Amino acid sequence: MTIKPLIEALQGKRLKVPPVWLMRQAGRYLPEYRKTRSGARDFLNFCYTPALAVEATLQPIRRFAMDGAIIFSDILVIPDALGQEVAFVEGKGPVLVPLESPESVSGLSLEPMSQHLQPVYEALSAVRGELPPETTLIGFAGAPWTIATYMIEGGSSKDFARAKSWAYGDPNGFARLIDLLVDAISNHLIAQVSAGAEVLQIFDSWAGVLPEAAFRQWTIKPIKEIIARVKAVHPDVPIIGFPNRAGVMYAPFSIETGVDAVSIDASVPLGWAADELQSKVTVQGNLDPIALLTGGSALKNAADTILSGLRNGAHVFNLGHGVLPPTPPDHVAQLVDHLRGAKG
Amino acid sequence: MTIKPLIEALQGKRLKVPPVWLMRQAGRYLPEYRKTRSGARDFLNFCYTPALAVEATLQPIRRFAMDGAIIFSDILVIPDALGQEVAFVEGKGPVLVPLESPESVSGLSLEPMSQHLQPVYEALSAVRGELPPETTLIGFAGAPWTIATYMIEGGSSKDFARAKSWAYGDPNGFARLIDLLVDAISNHLIAQVSAGAEVLQIFDSWAGVLPEAAFRQWTIKPIKEIIARVKAVHPDVPIIGFPNRAGVMYAPFSIETGVDAVSIDASVPLGWAADELQSKVTVQGNLDPIALLTGGSALKNAADTILSGLRNGAHVFNLGHGVLPPTPPDHVAQLVDHLRGAKG
Repeated sequence: MTIKPLIEALQGKRLKVPPVWLMRQAGRYLPEYRKTRSGARDFLNFCYTPALAVEATLQPIRRFAMDGAIIFSDILVIPDALGQEVAFVEGKGPVLVPLESPESVSGLSLEPMSQHLQPVYEALSAVRGELPPETTLIGFAGAPWTIATYMIEGGSSKDFARAKSWAYGDPNGFARLIDLLVDAISNHLIAQVSAGAEVLQIFDSWAGVLPEAAFRQWTIKPIKEIIARVKAVHPDVPIIGFPNRAGVMYAPFSIETGVDAVSIDASVPLGWAADELQSKVTVQGNLDPIALLTGGSALKNAADTILSGLRNGAHVFNLGHGVLPPTPPDHVAQLVDHLRGAKG
Repeated sequence: MTIKPLIEALQGKRLKVPPVWLMRQAGRYLPEYRKTRSGARDFLNFCYTPALAVEATLQPIRRFAMDGAIIFSDILVIPDALGQEVAFVEGKGPVLVPLESPESVSGLSLEPMSQHLQPVYEALSAVRGELPPETTLIGFAGAPWTIATYMIEGGSSKDFARAKSWAYGDPNGFARLIDLLVDAISNHLIAQVSAGAEVLQIFDSWAGVLPEAAFRQWTIKPIKEIIARVKAVHPDVPIIGFPNRAGVMYAPFSIETGVDAVSIDASVPLGWAADELQSKVTVQGNLDPIALLTGGSALKNAADTILSGLRNGAHVFNLGHGVLPPTPPDHVAQLVDHLRGAKG
């Protein structure tokens, strides 16, 4: 059996050359992606058309031989599958018909979900058959808190006033939504592994805006429950958690949720990450996407700082956030070459 | 001489009832503020008309008897005073004609600054004469990195791509802008104390987006220089630093810059803040503005958690960020009563 470096690293092995993949490696910065994207009616149609999703997933593998191929999809397929209206508006991002009150949760249903998300599972199976033997297939989902913010705010938010007011002012009502999302996300992750995903990542993009008590209740607790449910069915699948901008709270998150790895944003200092996180779990990260956009010696120096800071433990090289659309694909090639050349 | 609780707390004294003031306590949530605001041509004209700035500064003191009165002004008076075009567009926020390249720094000049900012100093002197004897007058400025982002991006930013690309790709050119801002900010803070400010706060609102090396170079280092210069002229003025969303980096910031106090955002866990920060400096914060907006028992519980978590050291009660415009003024009154009633 071929050795897969990403899986080895996620199992806790320190590799001389860390495996690498990049969040949003399948994205608008690639001309071939933009071409594939234009073949779909809209963004959700793109996600739900297996041939297109497979193509988008494979593009960065062909170009850069990344160690991980993350399935092309979106965290908002969950509310869409639950029956909430979701659209992606060009230049504005996701727009949802926001939930009106905690009671409106009862209008959502888990039942049609697995049928609705079938194209995602089909795409995973198809990608798995086309990947080079050393490349690992990654499935993913948003975390309950992050998905809840979109469902309540109706899109991106500046201060999360509505979502937090629900969580702070009516914790029991808010818990009903979170519990529903725990069910939906667990099912979706389990089905992705059954379809061929070898690793999972849970994106809690807005975890960092929560005060400690709320972070424990709405980030750590539901993610712990999701991981327990997934591991009950697929005990060996490594799970990466990404509580974006969690600051000091990355430490309890890493210890208490049961993740195998934690993905850290670019602001996390490496000495602290090595001492407090890497001693417990594999650390993934944390190049600033703007360093990748900038390129040149700024990129090489930033990459070297990370390689050096996390060299004494298990490390997966990644960005601290997704690839930005204006990033030249050449910079990605230079980064990957630099990481792999640095082994000699 | 009357005892001023805010100054005592900033000097490191633990008080049974912590002093309280709120970032943006003079703001749109107050009907009397909106009335005063309508008397000015535009936002900068508001800041530069001493009678209006004095009135806005005093409004929350009259209503809530806050322990601190922060002068009504804006962090962007600095680029405006340096000769960059700054406007505030209703519903959009600040709009600047962005600097084109590191070379455009040479088009900015320190010379007209003190004349240009004279109305701010006049307002400070006038407020000082009208405050109750136990109330402390707070002056402030933005930090170099944060002001630089506005000057380069031309306003608020999502990913700070231009500012970071300057900083990463041309650190010497970027340093010229930061050095100019260190001069400008130091002068402005010194002049504010000379005019009557008894405490200073430095707002580094976008410090949290920087990776460690950049945080050290563009946040800690210039703020340390500013504090040294201010203290050389006014050795006794307490200085509060607010490197918003700094996460783990709040610790080196608190130790290395020379601040007397650190203001923390709502995401910082209190046990960590007590151990790592409050052992070195006074801690200010860190109620989530959304808890204040929500009100009721959510507000009281959140306030009690903070009082309890920071009770063993010097603490100034504040928000983790500014008061949001839809906040009912009654919630502010309830918070202040609760804090002061909790002493019995």
